[in-house]
Amino acid sequence: MDKTTNKVISELAKKLDTISEAALLTHISPDGDCIGSMLALGIALEGLNKKICYYNPGFLPVNLKFLPGVDKICSVLPPEEFPETLIFIDCAEAERAYSGLCPEFLQGKTVINIDHHISNNGFGTVNWIDAGAAATGEMIFHLLGEMGVSMTKEIAENLYTAIITDTGRFSYSNTTVESFRIAAELLKTGLDLVQINNILFEQKSLAQTRLLQKALTNLELHQQGTMAVIVLTREDFEETGADESLSEGLVNYARNIEKVEAAALLKEIAPDEIKVSFRSNTWLDVNQVASRFGGGGHRRASGCSINGTMGQARQMIVSALEEALNVGRDH
Amino acid sequence: MDKTTNKVISELAKKLDTISEAALLTHISPDGDCIGSMLALGIALEGLNKKICYYNPGFLPVNLKFLPGVDKICSVLPPEEFPETLIFIDCAEAERAYSGLCPEFLQGKTVINIDHHISNNGFGTVNWIDAGAAATGEMIFHLLGEMGVSMTKEIAENLYTAIITDTGRFSYSNTTVESFRIAAELLKTGLDLVQINNILFEQKSLAQTRLLQKALTNLELHQQGTMAVIVLTREDFEETGADESLSEGLVNYARNIEKVEAAALLKEIAPDEIKVSFRSNTWLDVNQVASRFGGGGHRRASGCSINGTMGQARQMIVSALEEALNVGRDH
Repeated sequence: MDKTTNKVISELAKKLDTISEAALLTHISPDGDCIGSMLALGIALEGLNKKICYYNPGFLPVNLKFLPGVDKICSVLPPEEFPETLIFIDCAEAERAYSGLCPEFLQGKTVINIDHHISNNGFGTVNWIDAGAAATGEMIFHLLGEMGVSMTKEIAENLYTAIITDTGRFSYSNTTVESFRIAAELLKTGLDLVQINNILFEQKSLAQTRLLQKALTNLELHQQGTMAVIVLTREDFEETGADESLSEGLVNYARNIEKVEAAALLKEIAPDEIKVSFRSNTWLDVNQVASRFGGGGHRRASGCSINGTMGQARQMIVSALEEALNVGRDH
Repeated sequence: MDKTTNKVISELAKKLDTISEAALLTHISPDGDCIGSMLALGIALEGLNKKICYYNPGFLPVNLKFLPGVDKICSVLPPEEFPETLIFIDCAEAERAYSGLCPEFLQGKTVINIDHHISNNGFGTVNWIDAGAAATGEMIFHLLGEMGVSMTKEIAENLYTAIITDTGRFSYSNTTVESFRIAAELLKTGLDLVQINNILFEQKSLAQTRLLQKALTNLELHQQGTMAVIVLTREDFEETGADESLSEGLVNYARNIEKVEAAALLKEIAPDEIKVSFRSNTWLDVNQVASRFGGGGHRRASGCSINGTMGQARQMIVSALEEALNVGRDH
């Protein structure tokens, strides 16, 4: 870490030493990093006899319910009376925690902003943004070190979860030497990585497994196997008992097939409302494809919504990807 | 590492310094650890101007063909004329490399035996067995350090592959603090972990994806959802174009379903010949179940073969697991 970062951490650690209570806040659509980071910091602060309350507005994914301290998280903010110190964790904007939160709510408060999103707008009175950290959990690890907190198994389980969820078990491009170094330190507490990996990555509900079966049954290849499209209708969701959230990641089964460059998952989320996820592997710009339908995202992962029947949407998407693949190949 | 281990590594490093050529040998049914470890050590020794030849008797899995140096591996031993030094890597017995190899072949040779299997029978003239290493690749990492070899990207890609395949991307119980520490060092060479993880764990052939679809379509639950059984017939293999090796890992789709304790995959590998894989999650001893059919293995993973039709085998397996689950529950 560079000098400036060291100074920020050191000042933040000193600041946290002086407070007697704090509210911790994380973002909607909670994930392993925001929840694990919040709980790790909260448990550490409680160990230093601070009064801590935890807030998250979203539905907690079932597979995070094993995290130590998770039962303390409240979804609703108290009507008034809030601690003087608010610590926002893994939120690029304060509104990511609760929409319509600002600015009155933050007025007169000490707002600490700890995040690894490059898009963070620096909304805090104290801001520590490290876009080089694979997970906010890595930042919390360093902060606790600076605060002199001894690493416990409870804290380590939360930080380990934060890191492996945001790095896809050390397989995404954000993974750094530091990610592995921190994992080594966390494992020293004796945490059960087999169990945690099982809960986070292996276990599936029967509905999820049945939905995967439907997705693979509906899988179509086009363009000499360079395009793979999966369709999931209302009936597929109803017959399997799966809700829409359980379709997350299914588009990768299309993308990961040998020779496939363009992949799409079409989900009928309401009558005549089709949600589309696009993925590409090496060269196709699916952000451009999605933008033709009013959507967007990144070059290798994007999405859009289409009003129409599944049949219409399917035809539009296959044509658009076909065209994009052909134009790309010609150049 | 303890003193004895340090002494062994140091003596081995000195020994390797004196040789001018060596043959490297690894085990049948080659995997990421044995191939990655062999290539890493071989590349390092070639860098020290040793003449190295590489032997492996098996069919190399397609997803290991990206490894630097992989094209140098020969499958057939030379009729005579073999170097004075033979280095066996990741082989619990010399016969694991080539059946019928001993003892004439090894006579008068310096046989170096580097392995992490606890069952290793110490067949070498120099033996270094470390059952605490998650992968033989970790041992090679330490050996190269002792030899003063500077880590290159080519060596690191081989060792990283060795470690992530044998630890299941740092998720199996053999993963240690050292596994993470070594990964951190390897990543410093700038290896592309996204690409390697894609090749090793994400990419699937169309046939493999179609076989998964068949497996999930044929998935049955019994005993209030505590038993999951998958059946794959000859027709399933023929229709998907998948060979039997592509069914590896499919039993986990049954095991990983919530509430499942006992899982089985039945494959018709020839007419009236059914190969069965058993898995359990927390308490059922599937070694005992497999042994009833003349098979065996471990408490949580075992297998057997049954002569009979798929219908007969299916009934026998479901009954045996049903009984085992009921007996277990009663106690």
